[in-house]
Amino acid sequence: MNIVQNQLIRWIETHTVSDIVILTDAKISQLYPDYFNQLKETYSTHTILLPEGEKSKNIDVCRETWEKMLSLPIDRNALIINWGGGSISDTGGYIAGCYKRGIRYINIPTTLLAMIDAAIGGKTGINFAGVKNAVGLIYLPETVLTDASFLNTLPYEELRSGYGELIKYAMIDDDNLWEEIKGNTAISPETIDPCWIQRCSTLKKKITSQDLYDHDLRRVLNFGHTVGHAIESYCMTQGTPINHGHAVALGIICESHISWQLHRISKCQLDEISQYIKQLYPLPALPQEANEKMLEFCLNDKKNNGKCLNITLLDEPGHATPNYEISTDEVLASLHHLRTIYH
Amino acid sequence: MNIVQNQLIRWIETHTVSDIVILTDAKISQLYPDYFNQLKETYSTHTILLPEGEKSKNIDVCRETWEKMLSLPIDRNALIINWGGGSISDTGGYIAGCYKRGIRYINIPTTLLAMIDAAIGGKTGINFAGVKNAVGLIYLPETVLTDASFLNTLPYEELRSGYGELIKYAMIDDDNLWEEIKGNTAISPETIDPCWIQRCSTLKKKITSQDLYDHDLRRVLNFGHTVGHAIESYCMTQGTPINHGHAVALGIICESHISWQLHRISKCQLDEISQYIKQLYPLPALPQEANEKMLEFCLNDKKNNGKCLNITLLDEPGHATPNYEISTDEVLASLHHLRTIYH
Repeated sequence: MNIVQNQLIRWIETHTVSDIVILTDAKISQLYPDYFNQLKETYSTHTILLPEGEKSKNIDVCRETWEKMLSLPIDRNALIINWGGGSISDTGGYIAGCYKRGIRYINIPTTLLAMIDAAIGGKTGINFAGVKNAVGLIYLPETVLTDASFLNTLPYEELRSGYGELIKYAMIDDDNLWEEIKGNTAISPETIDPCWIQRCSTLKKKITSQDLYDHDLRRVLNFGHTVGHAIESYCMTQGTPINHGHAVALGIICESHISWQLHRISKCQLDEISQYIKQLYPLPALPQEANEKMLEFCLNDKKNNGKCLNITLLDEPGHATPNYEISTDEVLASLHHLRTIYH
Repeated sequence: MNIVQNQLIRWIETHTVSDIVILTDAKISQLYPDYFNQLKETYSTHTILLPEGEKSKNIDVCRETWEKMLSLPIDRNALIINWGGGSISDTGGYIAGCYKRGIRYINIPTTLLAMIDAAIGGKTGINFAGVKNAVGLIYLPETVLTDASFLNTLPYEELRSGYGELIKYAMIDDDNLWEEIKGNTAISPETIDPCWIQRCSTLKKKITSQDLYDHDLRRVLNFGHTVGHAIESYCMTQGTPINHGHAVALGIICESHISWQLHRISKCQLDEISQYIKQLYPLPALPQEANEKMLEFCLNDKKNNGKCLNITLLDEPGHATPNYEISTDEVLASLHHLRTIYH
């Protein structure tokens, strides 16, 4: 047994647990068919497969899962284990939070993005009527157990996606991490230090615990996300989607440029950030004509009121401050910068 | 404007509220078409009608409501007002708790049962796959505003149902209330002192705030409910349903008898309780052959582990203690007592 498998067994041994329900997808369970063998020997364990990726974030998937759980039947002392990427922890956390008014759950993330972001902080949710996370809860897991060995089977694009969020954590609150990662020019399971994952997940846990309901402080986590989301949404509508963390990495270039425009960081710092991200992430097609649409996506962001954009800005790499009001002009200039550096 | 209408406006004035969504049913809105006129003059207000009674406690009703709210669109600064009986506050609380990971809501209960019980304490939920409240949340309202004038249009049977819970509160924690109500031999809006409602709702609020997640203390509220639920479920399966509080009143007779069997209350106290409830509530058909089924319902209660029954017992009228383990023999004896006093 590895450390995580041990930690899980120890957690269960020290709590009152009736049944264990593992929510995962076919891919993970095929890659690691024996992962919970030890657990299954001792405890009543049920595995329910959810669809892969965003397809699981669906009310019908929740309904079917609740129905299965009721028919087993699963009582209120059961434990749900969400074993997979962010879609599994988003959906599974919501399923746990609503089942019999809330049962306990533990996340065991299998993607870098989930390990440092999605699986931490209790934001659960499903997409509904075409709106992302329109239905969901703030409902905390009992614990999040990180087993970096899952990264060995993670596709490169997904690893790179998680790495985008890792860069974000370095930017907003960990100048030492920034110093360490900026020498890393190839993203692979070998070059990603498990300690980096630990530092990011601890940071996310610290920030979210200080502002569980996302009133203010938690917004610092949105660095790179206002423009990043717009890029992600635009590419999606063009039928050429890019991964979330890829879009965030490009968003970091733009929002660093906005930080520079507002005289918060130096040209030298901006260039260092821009060049580092450029060598790792390609630029998707974002023609001039896309500007209007992307501004619209920025303004529709749920954090904004009216015509101003609420954004997190860098004070320097390693320090950020949330809740700046900026105009769309600054976003347009940052998109121009993005195109220029990739030219 | 009456006091509640004033309190509501004052609450809204002192909080940041974008839109107001009133969830109610056709019956209430037809009985009181002008109730929110003042509100509607000043604020962007939307009324969404849910089906009447338990039919609203349904996942499809939630889906339709979320869809309507997304299409309006309703943002995270909106306020939901659940205006109706317990089904409305159960469903509406769940709708509010899941919409965009939780928006605020206020309950304005219109039935006695909701005023003193269902609308307080944050237990929300819908029925799912034939299981009552199988899907739901513990999610607290901002406030509960009680307007006793709604009782003037409440059908007698529903008033009597709420009165069953009122007797329960007197039994578990308010000997003065028991002294006051036991002289009341007719249930009507005129004989129900609004102060009684206030005392019950305050008590429920106090108990639930001490044990929000129903681990232990809150179980005192289940006095009368173990046998009461069994009677309610049995009558339901016979196609002759009785109201919840009616079943609870009969359950109080039975569980008082169990308290007497275990030498906790005197024969005299048991008789006083039994006779008081007998004069107000008729006994439905509960033949000897129903015993087995009713025991099954008792044992299936979610509060029980295995073969023992977890029950709240009276120390005396006005004082109760939760978490006694009793056997089915004591339940059978109490059902015999119930039939005997009505004979």
